Amino acid sequence: MVKRVEDESLVNIEAGATVTSFDGSPGNFHVELSSGKKFDAEATILATGFTHFDSVNKPEWGFGMFPDVVTTTQVEQMISSGQGVRCPSDGRKPKRVAILLCVGSRDRQIGREWCSKICCTVSANMAMEIREELPDCHVYIYYMDIRTFGLYETKYYWKSQEEFKVKYIKARIAEVTSDGEKLIVKGEDTLVKRPITIPFDMVVHAIGMDPNVENPSIAETFGVDLEEHGHIGAANRYGAMGATSRPGVYVAGAATGPETIDDSIAQGHAAAMAVLSGLKDAVA
Amino acid sequence: MVKRVEDESLVNIEAGATVTSFDGSPGNFHVELSSGKKFDAEATILATGFTHFDSVNKPEWGFGMFPDVVTTTQVEQMISSGQGVRCPSDGRKPKRVAILLCVGSRDRQIGREWCSKICCTVSANMAMEIREELPDCHVYIYYMDIRTFGLYETKYYWKSQEEFKVKYIKARIAEVTSDGEKLIVKGEDTLVKRPITIPFDMVVHAIGMDPNVENPSIAETFGVDLEEHGHIGAANRYGAMGATSRPGVYVAGAATGPETIDDSIAQGHAAAMAVLSGLKDAVA
Repeated sequence: MVKRVEDESLVNIEAGATVTSFDGSPGNFHVELSSGKKFDAEATILATGFTHFDSVNKPEWGFGMFPDVVTTTQVEQMISSGQGVRCPSDGRKPKRVAILLCVGSRDRQIGREWCSKICCTVSANMAMEIREELPDCHVYIYYMDIRTFGLYETKYYWKSQEEFKVKYIKARIAEVTSDGEKLIVKGEDTLVKRPITIPFDMVVHAIGMDPNVENPSIAETFGVDLEEHGHIGAANRYGAMGATSRPGVYVAGAATGPETIDDSIAQGHAAAMAVLSGLKDAVA
Repeated sequence: MVKRVEDESLVNIEAGATVTSFDGSPGNFHVELSSGKKFDAEATILATGFTHFDSVNKPEWGFGMFPDVVTTTQVEQMISSGQGVRCPSDGRKPKRVAILLCVGSRDRQIGREWCSKICCTVSANMAMEIREELPDCHVYIYYMDIRTFGLYETKYYWKSQEEFKVKYIKARIAEVTSDGEKLIVKGEDTLVKRPITIPFDMVVHAIGMDPNVENPSIAETFGVDLEEHGHIGAANRYGAMGATSRPGVYVAGAATGPETIDDSIAQGHAAAMAVLSGLKDAVA
């Protein structure tokens, strides 16, 4: 996909550049970059995405304190690098892995009330990948609600349980500690209402999507409103798809809130279509 | 939105017509309608949507047997008509309403394994509307998992509980019966592991999205594959957005599986963009 964009003769890419100044009106915006380069634009689409939640902001769950407490992003890197899933402390293959959902999501104590939409499905998929690489490893997913919505239900939730024997446990996790040898997950099993204290070799934080940390300055530069949690505010989609509070400035994907890749792609196309439609109206 | 389409001079609408024949190739398809009309098309987008689950297929939950067991669609009609939420049996204002989630969704016993994606959020919104119209009415939502994903968490799940005092109960519902006066919801509260037998004035089925019942004939006419549950199969979205198994035939929205309105609109735009891009490639 990146190559398709790079090879497109009508697309110019300015990597590593920040927009420092943006003014004008639809059909006639003036843009200045941090490189000093200036150009004009008829419209803009903000596709500025999200920032991963930083697990150090949930200290009682052990990230940053115990090396074998890792994030979904780190496990994805272990898998995609070909190295395989290994405990960072000593490189051993874990025999018991816990994936904790909603790390930085649905958590008012740390100012993250929203649901990050994709972590349940990402975690179900990751659990299957771990089981595929390490068939002797037991994988447990600790959840509040499992949100494998739509067709993900069959492809991830059921498949992970039936074909890959992943265990789902509804629980409130209080803390992740260590007995010097194993990580210890403590909390309450919500269904049987019993305290749990369970040893693991590796604990994975299914980290959520924060608003892009740069959203305040992006909003100021482009003159658009943020919504209550700090995402870029998307207007009612029954009108122009991807409209923001400023005419001629559009938005797509996880810039507006937690979003899947498929829907981000669709919103990108839709915003492009809205730009064309908006420019046609401006000319007419 | 309908009016915007009707008023667009470049759009022709053939209401009440069925496509009876479709052949040719991308850039040059030949279409015949049930009216006998024939025309050519360069591409096609299937936006054929879904069919609501028919609650008579879940007989133990009382629809069709007790007049005060209704569906979310019926309650939406009561609200939008201005009539207000009333018990169909005698027109009285209900004092206690139960909304049952996952009716025709996540239910393998009746061949509906998928999650219908929107019923949790629709039900949370409906519960607030009922409480707004009838402040003395208690509204309970019975659920397996609450799937108000992304930003719906704040706007529907939390708002319905905190501002509107809607009660959420994790439960397995066994049956809906009647004692001659009230409806009786029987099941098990999954969190306290206790049997429940609770009287209500009205029980609302949050009905799911079945594949369009006409999908088998649509698939045959247009020569496209269905996915395993009977929805129209969408190709990998990293390529052309909205592609089906047949070049030149695209798909958008709930035709591909349970979908929100916002995402259906985005996918419609995206499919239109894919058509333009496909035709450009065909010419080049």
